[in-house]
Amino acid sequence: MPSDAASRRTYSYLGPAGTFTEAALEQVPEARGQIWRPVHNVGEALADVAEGRSDAAMIAIENSIDGGVSTAQDALARIPNLRIVGEYLVPVSFVLVGKPGQRLEDVQLVSAHPVAYAQCHRWLVEHLPGHQHVPAASNVASAVGILDGSSSAEAAIAPPGITAHHHVDVLAENIGDNTNAVTRFVLVTGPGVPPAPTGADKTSVIVELPEDRAGTLLELLEQFSTRGINLSLIQSRPIGDALGRYRFVIDADGHIRDERMADALMGLRRFSPNVVYLGSYPRADRAIVHYSNRYSDEVFVEARDWVRGLLSGEPDA
Amino acid sequence: MPSDAASRRTYSYLGPAGTFTEAALEQVPEARGQIWRPVHNVGEALADVAEGRSDAAMIAIENSIDGGVSTAQDALARIPNLRIVGEYLVPVSFVLVGKPGQRLEDVQLVSAHPVAYAQCHRWLVEHLPGHQHVPAASNVASAVGILDGSSSAEAAIAPPGITAHHHVDVLAENIGDNTNAVTRFVLVTGPGVPPAPTGADKTSVIVELPEDRAGTLLELLEQFSTRGINLSLIQSRPIGDALGRYRFVIDADGHIRDERMADALMGLRRFSPNVVYLGSYPRADRAIVHYSNRYSDEVFVEARDWVRGLLSGEPDA
Amino acid sequence: MPSDAASRRTYSYLGPAGTFTEAALEQVPEARGQIWRPVHNVGEALADVAEGRSDAAMIAIENSIDGGVSTAQDALARIPNLRIVGEYLVPVSFVLVGKPGQRLEDVQLVSAHPVAYAQCHRWLVEHLPGHQHVPAASNVASAVGILDGSSSAEAAIAPPGITAHHHVDVLAENIGDNTNAVTRFVLVTGPGVPPAPTGADKTSVIVELPEDRAGTLLELLEQFSTRGINLSLIQSRPIGDALGRYRFVIDADGHIRDERMADALMGLRRFSPNVVYLGSYPRADRAIVHYSNRYSDEVFVEARDWVRGLLSGEPDA
Amino acid sequence: MPSDAASRRTYSYLGPAGTFTEAALEQVPEARGQIWRPVHNVGEALADVAEGRSDAAMIAIENSIDGGVSTAQDALARIPNLRIVGEYLVPVSFVLVGKPGQRLEDVQLVSAHPVAYAQCHRWLVEHLPGHQHVPAASNVASAVGILDGSSSAEAAIAPPGITAHHHVDVLAENIGDNTNAVTRFVLVTGPGVPPAPTGADKTSVIVELPEDRAGTLLELLEQFSTRGINLSLIQSRPIGDALGRYRFVIDADGHIRDERMADALMGLRRFSPNVVYLGSYPRADRAIVHYSNRYSDEVFVEARDWVRGLLSGEPDA
Repeated sequence: MPSDAASRRTYSYLGPAGTFTEAALEQVPEARGQIWRPVHNVGEALADVAEGRSDAAMIAIENSIDGGVSTAQDALARIPNLRIVGEYLVPVSFVLVGKPGQRLEDVQLVSAHPVAYAQCHRWLVEHLPGHQHVPAASNVASAVGILDGSSSAEAAIAPPGITAHHHVDVLAENIGDNTNAVTRFVLVTGPGVPPAPTGADKTSVIVELPEDRAGTLLELLEQFSTRGINLSLIQSRPIGDALGRYRFVIDADGHIRDERMADALMGLRRFSPNVVYLGSYPRADRAIVHYSNRYSDEVFVEARDWVRGLLSGEPDA
Repeated sequence: MPSDAASRRTYSYLGPAGTFTEAALEQVPEARGQIWRPVHNVGEALADVAEGRSDAAMIAIENSIDGGVSTAQDALARIPNLRIVGEYLVPVSFVLVGKPGQRLEDVQLVSAHPVAYAQCHRWLVEHLPGHQHVPAASNVASAVGILDGSSSAEAAIAPPGITAHHHVDVLAENIGDNTNAVTRFVLVTGPGVPPAPTGADKTSVIVELPEDRAGTLLELLEQFSTRGINLSLIQSRPIGDALGRYRFVIDADGHIRDERMADALMGLRRFSPNVVYLGSYPRADRAIVHYSNRYSDEVFVEARDWVRGLLSGEPDA
Repeated sequence: MPSDAASRRTYSYLGPAGTFTEAALEQVPEARGQIWRPVHNVGEALADVAEGRSDAAMIAIENSIDGGVSTAQDALARIPNLRIVGEYLVPVSFVLVGKPGQRLEDVQLVSAHPVAYAQCHRWLVEHLPGHQHVPAASNVASAVGILDGSSSAEAAIAPPGITAHHHVDVLAENIGDNTNAVTRFVLVTGPGVPPAPTGADKTSVIVELPEDRAGTLLELLEQFSTRGINLSLIQSRPIGDALGRYRFVIDADGHIRDERMADALMGLRRFSPNVVYLGSYPRADRAIVHYSNRYSDEVFVEARDWVRGLLSGEPDA
Repeated sequence: MPSDAASRRTYSYLGPAGTFTEAALEQVPEARGQIWRPVHNVGEALADVAEGRSDAAMIAIENSIDGGVSTAQDALARIPNLRIVGEYLVPVSFVLVGKPGQRLEDVQLVSAHPVAYAQCHRWLVEHLPGHQHVPAASNVASAVGILDGSSSAEAAIAPPGITAHHHVDVLAENIGDNTNAVTRFVLVTGPGVPPAPTGADKTSVIVELPEDRAGTLLELLEQFSTRGINLSLIQSRPIGDALGRYRFVIDADGHIRDERMADALMGLRRFSPNVVYLGSYPRADRAIVHYSNRYSDEVFVEARDWVRGLLSGEPDA
């Protein structure tokens, strides 16, 4: 462990202690023993990196219920010089907690972050049919509010880890509607040479569609399909200046050091008025990317050499 | 005005009075003098229609800042037998309000619906740098909370129409970050013959991608492009059962009574394991849909007659 | 055998007796005992059908060495009201023949139809290095010429069947360069209800590309690929009015009575300024056409019913 | 003019003097005063270049009536190390000639190369309804045959230039069915640095389709369309080993020194088991190639630099 703060790295994350984001950061071996800086939202976490207050930020980027986290995607599209270097999955499950002594049958007001509330809606309708929702700012703030009295609710929806940090009673476990729910987090740093390819990599980009012609989404997708590259995420986001104008958040299988991916990125750059390269990094699930031999590095290198030979007037091989 | 409730139609909308949704409903001539039923959320509004409590529901479906309204899109995907019959645009602007006598410089806590809060973020950072956010359940509940004391905030973000319903002081006007912001609403009913084509129509569908092969989004888009149909909205939504599985919410130019659109819908139905037809209805902007002569009704009818002739052994014309 | 000509059917074919075309006609059971009318070229054979002199014509349409037979394709494109009703394959092999007593080593001039000459070129260069070519009008005329003295050649290239009709010596057998060579023939009639589907059918069309925009060949091919239809022949032919203007001769797997094929034909008709439907008929090789369930008749019928239901306002099933 | 043969260049062409091919060669300024070597067919002309007997060969490659000249295309596909360096157009018109004193009304047998015969068929049917065709080996051999008595015909179809070389009477002029007919010739050399781009260039390739999957012609065409490259020729040719296997002869607008064309050639090379690069050369019509700014050299160079920067870890520009 480093002997002083000056030599330690700083990691920003959505705090306080006990959030799912903290659980994601706990998966990063090199973050152990470093400075963990809790912040209030994704924008703050990314600004910490962009402005040098932190070396890295852990942010939620997608969940299996709600899809892409809009604020994270929009911040990545807006703030330059950010690069994803790692991906982490955290299973999402919720507990209902109350002050010590609280009984489930007496709960009338439930404090919850709106996303968590939506994910537990079915359970709540069944078990607390007469309840009302009190919005909270985070999955931890909900529980803190009922403890410090700033919320009038009798119960709060929180992650299971809440009991390690706060003195609450668990009124019900596993109250989420989807027991397979999982949230995807990414670790973001400033620019640098991308992590070495592992064979199980992802490349993330945000691509704005050109305005001046039809069929551009088809063209965007062809940049990948014609190089044999699969997409694991494609998410539309409004650019925000007018209805009907979109950018697309894309996760593609492979690494910028793969010839086919570098070629696809060049194709995107030529096609789009604005491409944000977010990085190439190992997949959380370590699943090896399979692709046809047609798209192997050798095929690309050989084709380049062939054209070079033609340009210099060499005879056919 | 009708003399009794039995003969009047009921319209559900996100209340209470003063919301942007109410402003949208005010644009519907045939809703005047009918029963307006305020509800707490989009799901409730659509359930009213599905279960016969209301004849129609007005819901927000997309805004120019945040994109598609996920809960509305997901509810439309889930609840059968709903049809969009009209589209309405409402400019989105916000005011900051307080109890009578409240001074702007004394505001420390701001009550706001999270979406509204996000849309005013730049203004707040500049004018109230030290403020904190207190989440509210709606753009009207925020103001009501500071009036009835259920919220500890000193100010609330609300629509301009709030002053017609509540006794508040306006501390600042036009505090939204994007002065062109607009929200798109749709009027939803049960199934029935679609409204007659006007030449300026939209058709809305929600299409699940098939699971078993690559390139399916390309195939989906080609169903429209090969019939000369433009899309004004394409929004991915996770199906929710696993990461990486999507359905797409699509608004396409034209009416199901247009031959090319009926043909495209048949193509979608053949392609997708699950297509939800949401309706064909006049565009809010009344912009006439232009398309190439190649895709006119006559061309489709003539081709059908030609094949019929070939099948019955007729000589060439 | 019919008792009088009035009740017999007439079949035109490229004569005289002994040609490959005659060998194809011998494969047609219902032609046995009917009137066989030898003609001088494909145009004459098709004109016989078009003008009522014959009930059907057998013509060569493609060979594995030279590709589509241009004159046949162009005649089918030009003459209306012709329909292909059957397909027949004839292996192509050649013999070198001479007058009785002729010795191979004395041959200096070789009479041959230009196509046959090209197909035997390698053998000729090796075995008769000093020979010269004398063009002949057909594979039989070549042999007849050396017998009746109208040709100065000492040997002729002819089909093996020549010996059944003419008193020649065979100087060499199997002189074709490709021992797998095969020629494809089609039986052509006037318009009528297409032969019933057998599950092993082909549909032939000639499609002119639209002039006024780029990428039209891609669009043409998509009419088939988006309906899961494979092509076994695609042959470009100049339209003839200017360089760079083409029509395409296409054989597609399946029958016009298949829903997907009827749909594709409608798509072609909408797309192209000029589509010639040449017929749907059993494949010579009787190979069953396989296709994905996605493109089965039921899928098309169901999609049509679905749209019909939407148009009439029916609730979702 | 060079003083001795050793320093002169040799040009092979389809002779004898008076052919359309000679007319094409007369359009080549640098061929004047050099050695012109008449040969009997296209294969011989190309073999002269491949085996060093000639520096260049002029061959017919396409005509507006018959399309691609199959033998020329097949020879270019088969013989390695050939490069097209120039393109020339010759209007095709025909005269009917006879021995001095021959009268048109006495003509019964017409000697003609089969292609020329086909191109004059309509005129012959109208003006010499009872004539018969005697095939000839070339457009000049037809006339020579009636002069030297080796042909029994009374008249021959020949190019107008025939009168400069042979003592014949012209019986009729402009007897071709299509008065706009034109034949395209190309000048072929061995490998070398391609001629410098002129802005009005063509690139010719022959591309074999991969065998192992469907939709490959679509993929081939996309290699061009996704780089904004138009095709002026696309001609299918059977590979010759089995029915249904094709290669495509393609003329594309642009030069291999254009970034988009070099990129397309790399794409073709990766895609196809066998691509023959035939050269980049100025168009006969000197028509400037127009293309969208999206596909300019700068766009390609900039995209390459961008990816290079990302790989080396540079911050965003």
